[in-house]
Amino acid sequence: MAIRYELIHTCKQTGARYGILHTPHGSFETPIFMPVGTKATVKTLENAEIKEASDGLILGNTYHLWLQPGDEIVKMHGGIRGFSQWDGALLTDSGGFQVFSLSNLRKISEEGVQFRHHKSGEKLFMSPEDSIRIQENLGADIIMSFDECPPFHADKDYMKQSVDRTIRWAQRGKDAHTRKDQALFGIVQGGPDKDMRKYCLEELMKIGFDGYSIGGLSVGESKEEMYEMLEYLQDVMPQDKPRYLMGVGAPEDLVVGSKYGIDMFDCVLPTRLARHGAVLSHTGRFNITKKEFEKDMSPIDSECDCKVCKTYTKSYMRHLFKADESLGQRLLSYHNLYYLKTLMNDIRESIKNDTLGDFLEEFEKKYF
Amino acid sequence: MAIRYELIHTCKQTGARYGILHTPHGSFETPIFMPVGTKATVKTLENAEIKEASDGLILGNTYHLWLQPGDEIVKMHGGIRGFSQWDGALLTDSGGFQVFSLSNLRKISEEGVQFRHHKSGEKLFMSPEDSIRIQENLGADIIMSFDECPPFHADKDYMKQSVDRTIRWAQRGKDAHTRKDQALFGIVQGGPDKDMRKYCLEELMKIGFDGYSIGGLSVGESKEEMYEMLEYLQDVMPQDKPRYLMGVGAPEDLVVGSKYGIDMFDCVLPTRLARHGAVLSHTGRFNITKKEFEKDMSPIDSECDCKVCKTYTKSYMRHLFKADESLGQRLLSYHNLYYLKTLMNDIRESIKNDTLGDFLEEFEKKYF
Repeated sequence: MAIRYELIHTCKQTGARYGILHTPHGSFETPIFMPVGTKATVKTLENAEIKEASDGLILGNTYHLWLQPGDEIVKMHGGIRGFSQWDGALLTDSGGFQVFSLSNLRKISEEGVQFRHHKSGEKLFMSPEDSIRIQENLGADIIMSFDECPPFHADKDYMKQSVDRTIRWAQRGKDAHTRKDQALFGIVQGGPDKDMRKYCLEELMKIGFDGYSIGGLSVGESKEEMYEMLEYLQDVMPQDKPRYLMGVGAPEDLVVGSKYGIDMFDCVLPTRLARHGAVLSHTGRFNITKKEFEKDMSPIDSECDCKVCKTYTKSYMRHLFKADESLGQRLLSYHNLYYLKTLMNDIRESIKNDTLGDFLEEFEKKYF
Repeated sequence: MAIRYELIHTCKQTGARYGILHTPHGSFETPIFMPVGTKATVKTLENAEIKEASDGLILGNTYHLWLQPGDEIVKMHGGIRGFSQWDGALLTDSGGFQVFSLSNLRKISEEGVQFRHHKSGEKLFMSPEDSIRIQENLGADIIMSFDECPPFHADKDYMKQSVDRTIRWAQRGKDAHTRKDQALFGIVQGGPDKDMRKYCLEELMKIGFDGYSIGGLSVGESKEEMYEMLEYLQDVMPQDKPRYLMGVGAPEDLVVGSKYGIDMFDCVLPTRLARHGAVLSHTGRFNITKKEFEKDMSPIDSECDCKVCKTYTKSYMRHLFKADESLGQRLLSYHNLYYLKTLMNDIRESIKNDTLGDFLEEFEKKYF
């Protein structure tokens, strides 16, 4: 087995899980946040910085790398890790989410999805087997089944059809998967329908996967809807496998998600916000470009001990953004990731101390 | 005196100068190339990288920092060095070149220049005294006199008027300059007219400066015209003061300029080229985005020992540019600067060995 999940402690206050995820390229304490390196680079950062500002497990996007430079070129380098010279651990998504969110003129059939490239308009096709083959070339430690990501509030009939197809595609993906050094996760879909989610999960568990991802959340529904589903799934998901909430990374969602037993998170949020000057800090989110920071000699987060907060003033950080200097995006990407790393560490400590409920309460008081 | 120039050796083959420039923030072997950090950041790079990829003396631009964030804010931080946390040495230009090249609707009077902001259109004014005051706030080790940079082929009458004004402005700047920890350079103008250049230099020497800059070259004239002027100036410039050729940084010009006794160079070229995918290498200049590099597993410069060349393939570097990932600009900026650092080191070694003429010949054979 490529990976192994070890449940170490369950928080008595919340049921949150502290564990260790063992992978071929390192063992990681969970819950963990994974920065996103869509195109074999976590935007603006170099590997040494990503190492410092993360726990060492990052994401690559199958859809983007398949299209540019092509998975064969990545394979030539020995996978994403050789291509970008990343020596930590890696996870890839299936490409499904991007096919459904970025591309045009999708046509879904039992075989797979026909669609047009989000920029060039080129006609493309991806099947569950294609997704697995590409992900084998990309060579991550953990890969995903190809799923359909339907709209959250799709009608009941469509949702059932879609979930059944996702289950059949998951089986086909598992059949196609040959690399024993890669773990394969199944993706639980079903929108807001708890029975549908449970059905999907149970069918995936019959097939048997190394971990279970929750897809189709944080796609436009309300926080309440998302949290309600996470609460429901907490008691349904298997105890012995890692639980991965896909595409979720707002600080408050990381705390709440952890509370509901999620082990893994990923999101472009911290780095995307950074590119627009938005700072994640211990006292909440704010934009560094505001006039009030023009002469502010304090660091962007006085409770943070990252190199950016130890080195630069708000005034300088604001200047970089006002002057359109990409160093600003870079320094802030580093800080935002580092902040989430710190947050995840605090979450894990609270779980170990059976105090995650208290932590959540205090976090919300301070952050909002 | 803020700086001291020590002439150590003159190349018997060419007359090129090897020396040491002592500044309040370090001593530097010359000839030296100085990367440009226009807005208190060498674009895309952090201080530790700039240290590695340069000799430790960099430039800031007065015009840009005066407008954003304003020199008073920089002064609050203790100057550019405190603002950007750069712990090497610094030089600022006078703002004159930018006023004449970037701004709109210039109106030159004896008092100074009235002009409009290159983006906002705001009405602005800069006098020689303003330039010195701003540069004192920016706090560099070496600062420049405010000069007019006339078109290279301006007519004789205008050139004489302009040079005389530049000389009077240089005197006013010297009178206004109060910081004893900053060296002040005079700028030699005069276009292609050797007598005018000599006249300008001699008048500046009567006023007395810590070094002499050659302005108004590399502004659109041919290489032959530039080289002819440098050859002429070689025997006219004072031996005991540093000679700074402003805004020149193409590899071939660094070798030829050194041959003609230049001690200091600066240019945005290596970093600007990098942002467009152009690589400076031991075997010449090329663009990494070319199709031929798609599967090229070799480094961008196999004779370079910088971290980029030791780490990444051409294929990955090309991918970053094709995928519009700013990490590509960053890595290439680092490499291009590192390449020039290596080149300057080779130039200095050749001067010490009295072989810069041979070096130039071999360089041209290999580079072009």
